[in-house]
Amino acid sequence: MVTGGIEGPGSSAELATFAAGLRFEDIPASVAGRAVDLFVDWVGSALAGKDVRPVETIAAFARTMGPATGSCETLIDRSVSSPLFAALVNGASSHVAEQDDVHNGSVFHPAAVVFPAALAIAQSIRASGQEFIAAVTAGYEVGIRVGEFLGRSHYKVFHTTGTAGTLAAAAAAGRLLKLSPDAMLHAFGSAGTQAAGLWEFLRDAADSKPLHTGKAAANGLTAAFLARDGFTGASRILEGPQGMAAGMSSDADPAKLTDRLGTRWALAETSFKFHASCRHTHPAADALLKAMTDAQLTIGDIAAVTARVHQAAIDVLGPVVVPSSVHQAKFSMGTTLGLIALHGRAGMAEFDRDHARPDVAAFRDRVTMVLDDEVNAAYPARWIGKVEVATADGRRIAARVDEPKGDPGNTLSRSEIDAKVRGLAAFSSAATPPEMDALLDRLWNIDRANALGALMPRRPAD
Amino acid sequence: MVTGGIEGPGSSAELATFAAGLRFEDIPASVAGRAVDLFVDWVGSALAGKDVRPVETIAAFARTMGPATGSCETLIDRSVSSPLFAALVNGASSHVAEQDDVHNGSVFHPAAVVFPAALAIAQSIRASGQEFIAAVTAGYEVGIRVGEFLGRSHYKVFHTTGTAGTLAAAAAAGRLLKLSPDAMLHAFGSAGTQAAGLWEFLRDAADSKPLHTGKAAANGLTAAFLARDGFTGASRILEGPQGMAAGMSSDADPAKLTDRLGTRWALAETSFKFHASCRHTHPAADALLKAMTDAQLTIGDIAAVTARVHQAAIDVLGPVVVPSSVHQAKFSMGTTLGLIALHGRAGMAEFDRDHARPDVAAFRDRVTMVLDDEVNAAYPARWIGKVEVATADGRRIAARVDEPKGDPGNTLSRSEIDAKVRGLAAFSSAATPPEMDALLDRLWNIDRANALGALMPRRPAD
Repeated sequence: MVTGGIEGPGSSAELATFAAGLRFEDIPASVAGRAVDLFVDWVGSALAGKDVRPVETIAAFARTMGPATGSCETLIDRSVSSPLFAALVNGASSHVAEQDDVHNGSVFHPAAVVFPAALAIAQSIRASGQEFIAAVTAGYEVGIRVGEFLGRSHYKVFHTTGTAGTLAAAAAAGRLLKLSPDAMLHAFGSAGTQAAGLWEFLRDAADSKPLHTGKAAANGLTAAFLARDGFTGASRILEGPQGMAAGMSSDADPAKLTDRLGTRWALAETSFKFHASCRHTHPAADALLKAMTDAQLTIGDIAAVTARVHQAAIDVLGPVVVPSSVHQAKFSMGTTLGLIALHGRAGMAEFDRDHARPDVAAFRDRVTMVLDDEVNAAYPARWIGKVEVATADGRRIAARVDEPKGDPGNTLSRSEIDAKVRGLAAFSSAATPPEMDALLDRLWNIDRANALGALMPRRPAD
Repeated sequence: MVTGGIEGPGSSAELATFAAGLRFEDIPASVAGRAVDLFVDWVGSALAGKDVRPVETIAAFARTMGPATGSCETLIDRSVSSPLFAALVNGASSHVAEQDDVHNGSVFHPAAVVFPAALAIAQSIRASGQEFIAAVTAGYEVGIRVGEFLGRSHYKVFHTTGTAGTLAAAAAAGRLLKLSPDAMLHAFGSAGTQAAGLWEFLRDAADSKPLHTGKAAANGLTAAFLARDGFTGASRILEGPQGMAAGMSSDADPAKLTDRLGTRWALAETSFKFHASCRHTHPAADALLKAMTDAQLTIGDIAAVTARVHQAAIDVLGPVVVPSSVHQAKFSMGTTLGLIALHGRAGMAEFDRDHARPDVAAFRDRVTMVLDDEVNAAYPARWIGKVEVATADGRRIAARVDEPKGDPGNTLSRSEIDAKVRGLAAFSSAATPPEMDALLDRLWNIDRANALGALMPRRPAD
């Protein structure tokens, strides 16, 4: 038997006590506002999963196994079920378009696991908007710290969003169920002992990613419901000698678990994803947009672009010369910059429609990546974007951005989030523009809701 | 990123191909017969979970989240639901009385994860008894080999029945769903990436154990259903560089995965648990029974017993002098031998009713354990039982058994399994004796069923 535990100042118990006790009034207004932003952003990603094969397969499984009645919505098809299945399907659907949020330090995607569990329970108990915001904030604060605690060694083999995500979902779910600190700790125990998700699927481009988020949301929710009814779990599931860190990490740091609880708001450190392409293209895309805005250029004005990048961008994007699919086009620096040059944006719809358009392809071939020492040295703490644009009329225009769009220091405005969500919904045909008007009005006011009910408009045929 | 994989002769693909292709006709009659024995034995354990708090909490969760209609039975309460929830609750209930089977080499309890998944699907598709037996055999063969593959380092932190159990359940479920070898491999991928279960709960005597088996059964079933519908998983989830062994073991041996597939029947190596006490008491209990039978003794004839044991028995059982609960009495050598002396058996009912009875307590105080060199040297490969009985009339009678009752070389007869199952059902009041007559008749003939339907008698009020 393993006899040692991981000792340190942090503990599962302290984290559970924080999560159980977090009140809306304790959350700074700016953080609560950011939680609303993240929620609205998440709905866009959840809607984007409609008609994506692995998501629809999980949704069909949910229909086979779960009830067809209940107060919890599956956003992609507006069906209702019990909280478990709504959490499962919404969790799966929100992580498949790769447009959901990310916390850089923990390499963890909080929205895809926290909101599915929290929304399902909030709809089932008709929680208030403030209770909902307090719960999701608890989920973000817990999940991000668990991800940071489990560390780099964990992320090498385990999909942190699946593992830490189970705890995050349990925290959000448990807060909505008003668990006591003791019961929240039991929920953490039952969540951690269900936590799973391996990166092995990447090698085969298999479908596991949305399964991980769906199951993390569903399993965390399960842990919270069981704890509410007296089911007990390990009290040191994270740091104990046979706990998550002992089994699944070699560099776990317990101090991360409780780092500045109540004063550091990890939720507000979370990045939005703006462009629908590989994150390595984003700094240059933002810099090109700046150059075009500054110099009032259109696509026809541009003869060539040099993107000055970090080495990882060359490693990941370099092999993609002529993309053979829309998915691969998202890993093409030239295509991404071509869409930016053409439309001023590179969202799901732009990629889907125009990734192979002749003028975009021609632009793509005029884009070069070169390694930039400053950019490379700053990475990964900072993702600096630099481009040099050669214009058709012979000018050379340089531009830089110090933080890519969507990162905390360059976050999205509400109108940009609104437009992103509309774009995702339009892309997947999950809702019509008038339906999105009504939905977004509801979403932006979620923190003022007296009782969360259905979000999606009923279909005319319903 | 981890760059290496575990190389060796075994592979997930070979194991999946075996599981997908196993036909009833390929299984030796003695092995198929043993599968029936193990099934009947499992039903006893599943019924024994009735009214046990953590099991009932999981059952209540299933009622909240799942449908109340379907063809899949929850044995403890004879309710019906979809396959997912029947697997979850039956999986939880069958691992809580500690009377379910065990495979010594893999330290894995196959019945508690294989039968819940297989029975649920068999009832939902009305599979034949032969299809059912082929499927559960696939589940045992896969799960035992995965447990052996993951090795001792895995078992130090992970509850192998939860982790390997997910693959075992997927194999059985996938076989019933008639997955192709490719689809079975995808099911393995989705199962392995959900596999979880940590021993940390032991430190708090928390409720996680039945959660592990319930979730292993349900998650394995989920993986199989998803694979049937085209959902893909990692092709090397066990041995790949970011697979289960990479993340959760340091001594994995791929050769174990495919050890003599089709010629070695690991199912037939599985041990039944006979007495309802700690396994360390079993060899001496069997030896005492032999001494009493040989010399025709009753409890009143016995003045003292010396149990000659291995060191681990002294380590585990030694601290229990006067047990304070029925659970602790199962870790008392004296109490166990007292019940054997009184009743000739030490089942759930005997422990529950008589563990503190004055004549049993008095007998307990006349039992001594001493270390025996031969017994200790043979352990853990062989669990030899030796006792010396001093009779009231001054005789000294020695007896030994070379393999405890329930191990493959000293397995239970069908009438002994029958009696054990009746005892478990009586203990939990899950069924009346006449109901058990009808049920056992159905169970013993399971391999001849044309189509599996309901097993449990309907309640009069239904």
